[in-house]
Amino acid sequence: MIREHDVTPLGSLQLADPLASQLRFLLEADRLKSVVRGNRVCDGSRRENSAEHSWHIALFALVLAPHAMERVDVLRVVSMLLIHDVVEIDCGDTLLYDAVGAATQAARETIAARRLFALLPAEQAAEMLALWQEFEAAATVDARFAKSVDRLQPVLLNHAVGGGTWADHDVDEARERALTCRIAEGAPALWGVAEAIIKDAVYRGWLKPTPGT
Amino acid sequence: MIREHDVTPLGSLQLADPLASQLRFLLEADRLKSVVRGNRVCDGSRRENSAEHSWHIALFALVLAPHAMERVDVLRVVSMLLIHDVVEIDCGDTLLYDAVGAATQAARETIAARRLFALLPAEQAAEMLALWQEFEAAATVDARFAKSVDRLQPVLLNHAVGGGTWADHDVDEARERALTCRIAEGAPALWGVAEAIIKDAVYRGWLKPTPGT
Repeated sequence: MIREHDVTPLGSLQLADPLASQLRFLLEADRLKSVVRGNRVCDGSRRENSAEHSWHIALFALVLAPHAMERVDVLRVVSMLLIHDVVEIDCGDTLLYDAVGAATQAARETIAARRLFALLPAEQAAEMLALWQEFEAAATVDARFAKSVDRLQPVLLNHAVGGGTWADHDVDEARERALTCRIAEGAPALWGVAEAIIKDAVYRGWLKPTPGT
Repeated sequence: MIREHDVTPLGSLQLADPLASQLRFLLEADRLKSVVRGNRVCDGSRRENSAEHSWHIALFALVLAPHAMERVDVLRVVSMLLIHDVVEIDCGDTLLYDAVGAATQAARETIAARRLFALLPAEQAAEMLALWQEFEAAATVDARFAKSVDRLQPVLLNHAVGGGTWADHDVDEARERALTCRIAEGAPALWGVAEAIIKDAVYRGWLKPTPGT
């Protein structure tokens, strides 16, 4: 089925649904490669984009799944991580340290999720939206573990580049701990890693000590 | 366990194995973000890197799994796609149209796979290497479907940008069909899509017609 006013290059191909809708979604998703995050890649040469970030943390989930607090369904975790940032195509990346952006983030991203997943055939759209909502709510074992690796990766990258977004946003140890301590809810062992990294970063002068501590 | 001559920034943290090895692998994997492929992203603004490509085709696999020739294990397919290009950290991307590079590609990539996956704890290293070898051999239903989406995505991107690597490498229709027709082995419906795109690209002048046809 060809929709009216279809602007994608595939519009002229007269592909049938569900394939036409699925490919339209996958081409729209390509735009996530142009959403730039705060973190640098490990060699410090440039900032990471949300597509490669999503790949990286999906790989984290595959490798680190044995450290989940409870046994997780790895396919569900990886699926959440592959789609969790797609909303940034419409909203951009909201920095962890951006309190103003965070206040409206959930509302903005919900609108984006509804638009983007609706490009898919109805049943698949509902599944993807539910998976995205589950990740956001962090109310299941799978979602909490997915959140844990999403929170751990930037800590590792900031340490690798000697400061990164900690320096950019003048973050101190207490604030960083407050923003990342929920890693423990999905994977206590990974919170142990984050704590060790944070402590080392303070020791090296890459993360400010908290005044008065 | 801290290894001698450990050059990663994590070396000073005194993390225990298996976590130390797993994180070392995940930081090394970050370098895939700096491996540039031939294909452009859909807006044509720059060439795609192998990390974001891996994310994109893992998402293809999630969405397009119902079109696999036979029922696939989606977690195994997605896992293969997340790791299939990691060897390019050592070898770089070998273009589909590079016959000279292709002659030595398997040997070079096997050496890289052994080095990279060996960063992981032994059991996980063996699993990942086996999964990578399965993808390369394309001898299972899961691997053939994974290969199909890996081959389909660049066809879509070339069409989206109006030529891309087809124009760069003076590719004609017969050569493109020969290089992509194995999509049919993993997903006949996706080969139907690729054929429609190739035909449309020739009609639009983005892909050369084959002389004498």
